[in-house]
Amino acid sequence: MTKIYYFDNAATTFPKPECVYKALDFANRNLAFNSGRGIYSSSKQVYEMIQDTKNKLGKLIDADSSTISFESSATESLNLIIYGLDLKAGDHVYISPFEHNAIVRPLYNLQSKVGFTIHIIPFDKQTWEVNLDELHDEFTQFCPKAVFLSHISNVTGYVLPYEEIFSLSKSFGAVNVLDCAQSLGVLNPDKRNIDFAVFAGHKSLYASFGVAGFYDLSNYKLQIIKSGGTGSDSLNHFMPENGSQRYEAGSINSVAIAGLNESLNWLKANPPYNYEKEMTDYLISQLLTIDKVRLFLPKNHKRILGIVSISLDGYSSTDVGSILADDYNICVRTGFHCSPFVHDFIGSMGSQGTVRISISAFTRKDDIDYLIKAIRSL
Amino acid sequence: MTKIYYFDNAATTFPKPECVYKALDFANRNLAFNSGRGIYSSSKQVYEMIQDTKNKLGKLIDADSSTISFESSATESLNLIIYGLDLKAGDHVYISPFEHNAIVRPLYNLQSKVGFTIHIIPFDKQTWEVNLDELHDEFTQFCPKAVFLSHISNVTGYVLPYEEIFSLSKSFGAVNVLDCAQSLGVLNPDKRNIDFAVFAGHKSLYASFGVAGFYDLSNYKLQIIKSGGTGSDSLNHFMPENGSQRYEAGSINSVAIAGLNESLNWLKANPPYNYEKEMTDYLISQLLTIDKVRLFLPKNHKRILGIVSISLDGYSSTDVGSILADDYNICVRTGFHCSPFVHDFIGSMGSQGTVRISISAFTRKDDIDYLIKAIRSL
Repeated sequence: MTKIYYFDNAATTFPKPECVYKALDFANRNLAFNSGRGIYSSSKQVYEMIQDTKNKLGKLIDADSSTISFESSATESLNLIIYGLDLKAGDHVYISPFEHNAIVRPLYNLQSKVGFTIHIIPFDKQTWEVNLDELHDEFTQFCPKAVFLSHISNVTGYVLPYEEIFSLSKSFGAVNVLDCAQSLGVLNPDKRNIDFAVFAGHKSLYASFGVAGFYDLSNYKLQIIKSGGTGSDSLNHFMPENGSQRYEAGSINSVAIAGLNESLNWLKANPPYNYEKEMTDYLISQLLTIDKVRLFLPKNHKRILGIVSISLDGYSSTDVGSILADDYNICVRTGFHCSPFVHDFIGSMGSQGTVRISISAFTRKDDIDYLIKAIRSL
Repeated sequence: MTKIYYFDNAATTFPKPECVYKALDFANRNLAFNSGRGIYSSSKQVYEMIQDTKNKLGKLIDADSSTISFESSATESLNLIIYGLDLKAGDHVYISPFEHNAIVRPLYNLQSKVGFTIHIIPFDKQTWEVNLDELHDEFTQFCPKAVFLSHISNVTGYVLPYEEIFSLSKSFGAVNVLDCAQSLGVLNPDKRNIDFAVFAGHKSLYASFGVAGFYDLSNYKLQIIKSGGTGSDSLNHFMPENGSQRYEAGSINSVAIAGLNESLNWLKANPPYNYEKEMTDYLISQLLTIDKVRLFLPKNHKRILGIVSISLDGYSSTDVGSILADDYNICVRTGFHCSPFVHDFIGSMGSQGTVRISISAFTRKDDIDYLIKAIRSL
């Protein structure tokens, strides 16, 4: 195969560590059993591997393994949480302008039936800093039932100031939900004031498609949205009242979880934060040297991790992506990136969205130099 | 590893064809990209592979590939259908006594909020034949809004007479949903009068966990239950109105789909129905020779495929499973198998459910002989 220069790690990290590929192949051949539903040893072994994976995931944010439910995707996890929160007419829900359609679309769909109000948290368009005074006033007037934030924006790489916002919203009694699809494994959140934290195995956790989920750090019992077999209490027509099984209906993807188990080992041995931060800073510094490149950055560039969005004078974002793909074997993502509000906020509607460059622990400085040379040639 | 004698194929088929393992490893290393969301060739290649898989799946029941949506599990698919049907108070929904909790639990959960009525279709306890006259009377009195049937019962292996039931319910205008988790790939249904057919990749389709879905053969537009990014129309706060994307929110599991693509090739070259039928008949004939074994069978034994449930005089089903596992490395499933109504119907409450023996295309006659010998020794 021709070498590809892959800068679409925000969509899914590629490649994965070699040990993850090996673990997945091993698991397909040896651990693809139904967890805990059988009383034979293979089924028990799978159950123990899953518990071990939850233990390792728990340690990332100092949470108990029992708080974790595995789902098939971060999208599914967010749907289960959003629909499970029992939002009612008259409620007020807050999101940032950086949110992904995995939050926006379930909220708007539910809102169209239930009739609560969705507020966009005030961020300054110049600095990208949150206006806490204004937010405090808005919370006072329209008490927040729930607040949804991305830990890292999937379009801009911006690390959101979730601590300040959640601290304030918690003082108003809100349920705080953090979408860590772009962060967990590389940059782990501080669990204080977080009620639900969502993760995606195939992104910053360097595992495969098919495993994701959420930590339930709250005392809030979600309503059941997805029901089905749990391999337990089969005569009960309803889901179990307690435990993570409550949210884990259907056969659990033990193979993807075995891959995550191995990627967690790899992340522990090779924590990628420092390297990814260094490469992000290097990428930004190089892009800043190209006149026709417009970078979408906050005042404090240090708050960017892993993802940088740009546009090029005289080009639509799609044109840039096509040229990079066709002439240079460079993979970037172009357009609106499933994020409906951010483009008005950062000013990228005119360029038909952004050219998004996203790196991983496997992005080499040479690859960035090659990309920069290609962009410079446009 | 010690050889295991695996008779839990109704939970998940094991092993998979070697070509499926290889396809999964290849896909993890080469096709684990986000389908169609990038404009680079790897993303397009993944999109084409997914379309090709839908084409192959479509051919199994002579349906257009555009009718297929991929989901993460049959359970998720059934939840999307059940909640998407817009059932209302006063509606009448019908299920068979053979249904799995992937149908029963979502229905009861929704019923507890909405208040429709769930009817159990009358089957004769002796013959397991459906009483169509009685059903006709019930439909006349309580017009069916929706009918849910398993194609093959996950507990008893019974191939349900779905054609007669669906033909009748369709004449009353019902939406007909067939759960093909235990059948598609081995025994494909006749699509007439079916509105939605659900499949599970990791069972009779011999693919991995992580891919499942449904055919939408109806004119019925389901309400959106799961929302999220579709890699398209990002500025729209709602899911697309048309196309299978409407039901495919979030990153699609391209790796599991690539495995399914290969298993569909394998199924085409090695259609397993005849062999599985022969092994099922052989298993039944052998079990019938053991005095203390009670088989849960319909009058017409020929309607059993792949799965046989038994109990042993003087043993609970769990005891049998434990002995077979510990002393013989035999994997069977014991208990109630996520199917709440069938045990009262077949009379297996006293034995604490059944010992379920389920075979696959890889079950050898020798393995069955070994199992029979082990059971005989109890």
